[in-house]
Amino acid sequence: MVQSHESRLTSWVDVESTSDFPIQNLPYGVFKKSDGFTAVGVAIGDMVLNLAEVHEAGLFSKTCLAKENVFARDGLNDFMACGRTAWKEARRRITELLSLDCGTIRDDKALRERALLHMADVEMQLPVAIGDFTDFYSSKEHATNVGIMFRGKENALMPNWLHLPVGYHGRSSTIFVSGQDIRRPLGQTKADEADAPTFGPSRLLDFELEMGFFLGTGNKPGERINTKQARENIFGMVLLNDWSARDIQKWEYVPLGPFLGKSFATSISPWVVTLDALESFRTSSPPQEPKVLPYLEGDGQDAYAINLEAFIKSEKMDEPMRITATNFRHLYWSMFQQLAHHTVNGTAMRAGDLCGSGTISGPTEESRGSMLEICWKGTKPLTLTDGSERKFFADGDTVIIKGWCQGDGYRVGFGEVRATILPAEQVDL
Amino acid sequence: MVQSHESRLTSWVDVESTSDFPIQNLPYGVFKKSDGFTAVGVAIGDMVLNLAEVHEAGLFSKTCLAKENVFARDGLNDFMACGRTAWKEARRRITELLSLDCGTIRDDKALRERALLHMADVEMQLPVAIGDFTDFYSSKEHATNVGIMFRGKENALMPNWLHLPVGYHGRSSTIFVSGQDIRRPLGQTKADEADAPTFGPSRLLDFELEMGFFLGTGNKPGERINTKQARENIFGMVLLNDWSARDIQKWEYVPLGPFLGKSFATSISPWVVTLDALESFRTSSPPQEPKVLPYLEGDGQDAYAINLEAFIKSEKMDEPMRITATNFRHLYWSMFQQLAHHTVNGTAMRAGDLCGSGTISGPTEESRGSMLEICWKGTKPLTLTDGSERKFFADGDTVIIKGWCQGDGYRVGFGEVRATILPAEQVDL
Repeated sequence: MVQSHESRLTSWVDVESTSDFPIQNLPYGVFKKSDGFTAVGVAIGDMVLNLAEVHEAGLFSKTCLAKENVFARDGLNDFMACGRTAWKEARRRITELLSLDCGTIRDDKALRERALLHMADVEMQLPVAIGDFTDFYSSKEHATNVGIMFRGKENALMPNWLHLPVGYHGRSSTIFVSGQDIRRPLGQTKADEADAPTFGPSRLLDFELEMGFFLGTGNKPGERINTKQARENIFGMVLLNDWSARDIQKWEYVPLGPFLGKSFATSISPWVVTLDALESFRTSSPPQEPKVLPYLEGDGQDAYAINLEAFIKSEKMDEPMRITATNFRHLYWSMFQQLAHHTVNGTAMRAGDLCGSGTISGPTEESRGSMLEICWKGTKPLTLTDGSERKFFADGDTVIIKGWCQGDGYRVGFGEVRATILPAEQVDL
Repeated sequence: MVQSHESRLTSWVDVESTSDFPIQNLPYGVFKKSDGFTAVGVAIGDMVLNLAEVHEAGLFSKTCLAKENVFARDGLNDFMACGRTAWKEARRRITELLSLDCGTIRDDKALRERALLHMADVEMQLPVAIGDFTDFYSSKEHATNVGIMFRGKENALMPNWLHLPVGYHGRSSTIFVSGQDIRRPLGQTKADEADAPTFGPSRLLDFELEMGFFLGTGNKPGERINTKQARENIFGMVLLNDWSARDIQKWEYVPLGPFLGKSFATSISPWVVTLDALESFRTSSPPQEPKVLPYLEGDGQDAYAINLEAFIKSEKMDEPMRITATNFRHLYWSMFQQLAHHTVNGTAMRAGDLCGSGTISGPTEESRGSMLEICWKGTKPLTLTDGSERKFFADGDTVIIKGWCQGDGYRVGFGEVRATILPAEQVDL
């Protein structure tokens, strides 16, 4: 077998073969040094390449990014807004600078020490100033599972589900980067048999295993982005945990959809993996029947093979325990269909807008993307390795989602999104 | 009758008694001069006081706003984020500078000419960089009307409606300032009797007569704003038209709520009227039965008496025709309850976040706040003064909402929010 060009690429920075961040990946993030300095960087192995410093050293002078140092920022937005040509030039230049045979940074000790930082020495920040956040509901398996639980097998999918990617607007102000703890929310809930609602901490705290994509370039109000253009407008992807308080959601969501059951927290991974890095892992999309309306037609190769896993670690456990393993390719509606649908009414997208996939459940019991489904509405509790049981999450639990594409001898990975659940605020009830 | 202090205040700037913008009001907005200069201003009669210029002239030097010129901005956010003490000091100082007996600006010809602009000579901008936009559904009359139309009298209100202010997240990127035209959206719709959806321009384009409030100061994630604090956190209010494509909405909204049926456009008035200016018009709230949970309790004086009217003007009409007249005081859930509910789960609010009231319908047929209700689902068409009929809006129609509080010899008004409907983009169907 002839090795592809991609798999032969190596860097002068040490990268283990199981690393999520080889030279084939080069995801962007925002790091903060212990002295407070914050800028855009690229992950390479266990290191972060400080792009603000690389730019300062004049190493982007022959690219279209020469003029303004868009990496000397605390968010990716300005770089994203430069558009695909700039993204491609940046990727080409960074690949060159990190390649085994390039001495520009490697052999300049002073520059190398300024530009190459240990991941362990920096704190990753929310990578993007997020404008609007939309969450879709695009896994047929998830929608079917939820439908069966709440409406029975006959009416599992709503009539619109196979015709359009159902979605709703979420909350931007409570999107947190991996590592930030989240607090169990307070709220109104009502037991089926009760006459009136009560107030207190949510008892059914759940996660949703999702991915999200960031808009790089947007559209003007009244314009549209079609499925073909969508690929050019999307900058990259992250892992996303759409925290959900099922009991709050159940009582509040009729008729206008989820609100406080979701708005308390959404967690994302810090490294934005570009569509260019994912291109080798693009694959055939699931068949769609009935045929979609013309504005939603794709080219049949709009899925991405991304392995996804979720883990739980209680306070008493030494090691996380895997609770599901699924794949992004199972999604019925592609990102390009989601974006074409989102803008078909003229909705403006802006650099930094985020769209979530919806819970990604696979076809088997082992590939379900939420505790609601894994424990089937509490009827099949999960026994953890510390002997305790879970139907939903307990205070102190840490939830971790990981994701990666498997190449030939290398991985293009997303790292992880991790958060620990703090107890609810104490209140007089 | 002894005139109140407020009604006796007058300005050296000419203000007609029917003006929305006497010295008792002093709403903030962002104006743009023909040379492109953009800054924060205050409306007074038919004039705009350029606050950036007033600050530049040192006239805020004895206030807490002395240091940074937060008015030399293209949005109110920085001023809003200064907090209520600063808002009160600014209001006191501007009142003083515009008072009949104050010569500081009045008698300084050069400064006066720089600082006082004719409204007709400037273009009002979106006043705030809006982070998250939430829309509530807080009029009992509106929710009941819609409920009767779609579910019958017996089940008009959903079980949760009397227990919490139902709301959902909307789209920030498509909030437009008054005067910007809006385009009829394209989308998927499905006739009840059809097997499959079709694609094309919305045929049931509607408005919703609403008001919105802007957060001035927010809260940290995990914290709450209670009903008492809410009054201190809200900066001010605007008129809001929540454009709605009823046919798109009907097909898409189950189970996650309105999405593309709303996200194409929301229009707001340009002048933000502060809660301080509205304080004299605070009045008793509607009784709430059943009793609300403790975290939603108010002090019974949480409504504001704000007259609201909506008008239509077709391309053939010379004058707008009034289609409804209602009042903000009819709202069942107050702004303070909305904000306390919104943050009860720890959702973070930021300066510039916007919350809409939901359609404000009153108790009579003449006070309904949407075409859906006015024409009762198309069964009672409206005859316009040009002889044409409307069940929903036609291309070329201009929709105008006005609002004002009536004081003793003066008005505290909102001006208007106005937009004309452009035809949908031409597409091959």
